[in-house]
Amino acid sequence: MRKIGIPELEDIALGAALLGAGGGGDPYIGKLMAMNAINECGEVTMISPSEVPDDALILPIAMMGAPTVLGEKAANGNEYRRLFDMMTKYYGCEFYGVMPIEAGGINSMLPFAAATRLGLPLVDVDGMGRAFPELQMVTFTIGDISATPMAFTDEKGNGGILKTISNKWTEDIARSITMVCGGSVFIALYIMTGKELKEYGIGDIVTRSQRLGEVIRTAKNVTGMTPEEYFLKEANGYKLFTGKISDVLREVKDGFNFGKVELIGIGEDKGKEALIDFQNENLIAWIDGKVKAVTPDLICIVDSETFVPVPTDALKYGKRVMVVGLECHPLWRSPKGIELVGPRYFGYDVDYEPVEVLTSKCDQKEGC
Amino acid sequence: MRKIGIPELEDIALGAALLGAGGGGDPYIGKLMAMNAINECGEVTMISPSEVPDDALILPIAMMGAPTVLGEKAANGNEYRRLFDMMTKYYGCEFYGVMPIEAGGINSMLPFAAATRLGLPLVDVDGMGRAFPELQMVTFTIGDISATPMAFTDEKGNGGILKTISNKWTEDIARSITMVCGGSVFIALYIMTGKELKEYGIGDIVTRSQRLGEVIRTAKNVTGMTPEEYFLKEANGYKLFTGKISDVLREVKDGFNFGKVELIGIGEDKGKEALIDFQNENLIAWIDGKVKAVTPDLICIVDSETFVPVPTDALKYGKRVMVVGLECHPLWRSPKGIELVGPRYFGYDVDYEPVEVLTSKCDQKEGC
Repeated sequence: MRKIGIPELEDIALGAALLGAGGGGDPYIGKLMAMNAINECGEVTMISPSEVPDDALILPIAMMGAPTVLGEKAANGNEYRRLFDMMTKYYGCEFYGVMPIEAGGINSMLPFAAATRLGLPLVDVDGMGRAFPELQMVTFTIGDISATPMAFTDEKGNGGILKTISNKWTEDIARSITMVCGGSVFIALYIMTGKELKEYGIGDIVTRSQRLGEVIRTAKNVTGMTPEEYFLKEANGYKLFTGKISDVLREVKDGFNFGKVELIGIGEDKGKEALIDFQNENLIAWIDGKVKAVTPDLICIVDSETFVPVPTDALKYGKRVMVVGLECHPLWRSPKGIELVGPRYFGYDVDYEPVEVLTSKCDQKEGC
Repeated sequence: MRKIGIPELEDIALGAALLGAGGGGDPYIGKLMAMNAINECGEVTMISPSEVPDDALILPIAMMGAPTVLGEKAANGNEYRRLFDMMTKYYGCEFYGVMPIEAGGINSMLPFAAATRLGLPLVDVDGMGRAFPELQMVTFTIGDISATPMAFTDEKGNGGILKTISNKWTEDIARSITMVCGGSVFIALYIMTGKELKEYGIGDIVTRSQRLGEVIRTAKNVTGMTPEEYFLKEANGYKLFTGKISDVLREVKDGFNFGKVELIGIGEDKGKEALIDFQNENLIAWIDGKVKAVTPDLICIVDSETFVPVPTDALKYGKRVMVVGLECHPLWRSPKGIELVGPRYFGYDVDYEPVEVLTSKCDQKEGC
């Protein structure tokens, strides 16, 4: 158990932007909401999964919608209470704590606002270890944990409880509600016991975010190695490409941010080209036509000097960036995980290969 | 209190097709579902609004979706029980009976299936006295009765409870759910007390449907007047036009059946033309360019010989029909009623005038 205040939140938000893998929305908005809540209601008590009794019920809280819309719509701060009240009424019991379902982007921050406003501890766990665009894309689905009963509410006061026959149906119905409610809603779903979250959650993920944020913040001050070496070592990252953004295509469709970004190599990658596709999150990266990283591994675009993550909605022509691959959680590499969030789910006709394998493959032209 | 069995259901369905004003879906599907339920679970006990205690809670039950889709999707008969259980759990109390919210089309029949399957009486009342395409278009909205908490379920087993800030928001959110669930869902909404339904419901509407069905069924056997005279007298109908269908345009959009039908006059209307626009229901009728009836009054198209109603999805080139106007319930003619379902809501730049006024207006060409 430890306290999370404003300084810790800064690093967590920075690390969460990296784990967002380009999506999840800019944590900045979420950080402001969480800071505001902490200023009003006090620091958040964070507990590790092992501190949750096996039979205690935990309430995951998130926002659903296209990241670009999330930034434009305000919340009034009562949303968490409404979700909590709906769920308490439905279950007829109390919740032991709240948790995020997503480590990346805006959804890494909102549960802190929820925790302090509800006076509940936040559990250091999530269901992705990164960000993903759809509700069923959580390690909880691998564990057959139902997304519903799920509560939703918009900032106007509309809300409800859904009960579906599968987590994909939760996604489909909730997505249509999100769109008709103006592009974003607050949700509580995947209510689970302490036992379940210990088995199918990704533990200590907030602590990892915080450490990643600290690494980014302090990289320029290290001694004995270059900032880039330090960043890659501490983040356990695979350097995929360094280049200049030469083109960005974007489209908001069905409540998602779709698009692709093209890069021209600089430095050691001079003469090479990279292409990255995204649906909210970066999904697949090709270097000179070869896949070098693919979902569910994380493809992160960061500023080449500061290592500050660049979300897909902030990609701009001419920006110099480094593309970094991070290994996803082992649960995602199971057959069920690959079926849920692997390349074929997103329409790419390639088999999943781990980023550490793809990056170690020889380039034929260089004849190794 | 009286019993409704198969023979009564036949006449009610026939009359409901007339009150559907072209929409509400073919009551045939609903009739089969209701008959099936009555065969399995026994006759329905129908009570009049005056028999409902003021503080008793009544559960209105309906189906939502495009009428053409309703006919293609099956129900499994458990939907009413699921709605009932969701609502009972939410309210924590028992319901005294069920009721329809719509007198026209398929929704006139389903509450009979629900009543017998749930073992509850059906109240002889509705919230339209006809059919309308959207959920907020009920006389209950005039009385500020909330559509929510509303329960929904699809035939697959998805479902939920909605709570919205207005009845129009109920429509918007429920419509998006209906579409993602394949075009139709079962719903329970506008739960109200006996006192409320006596004030804002349209009483004895099932009895009226039954009488209209009987009139259509027996018109050919009357003596002392023509079948048409008998039909118009007993239905309290205004004859607007007799003609042959010369064109039908249809489009399914946003979960509604939109379209228009053109008629060429025959008999006493020879040389004239009629045009009728519909959105599920017939909304406005022009004869030679002049509005002769407009929503919320009922515009009904019936077979010119048998007076059997022709729903908008059964309109066919060459069919000989009579267009009949029926006065809507006085609640609809209030300013709030006209705002909710008058011509301007549907995008027509005309003021509402009652059908009895429009049909008595002189035609300038004839110089009266």
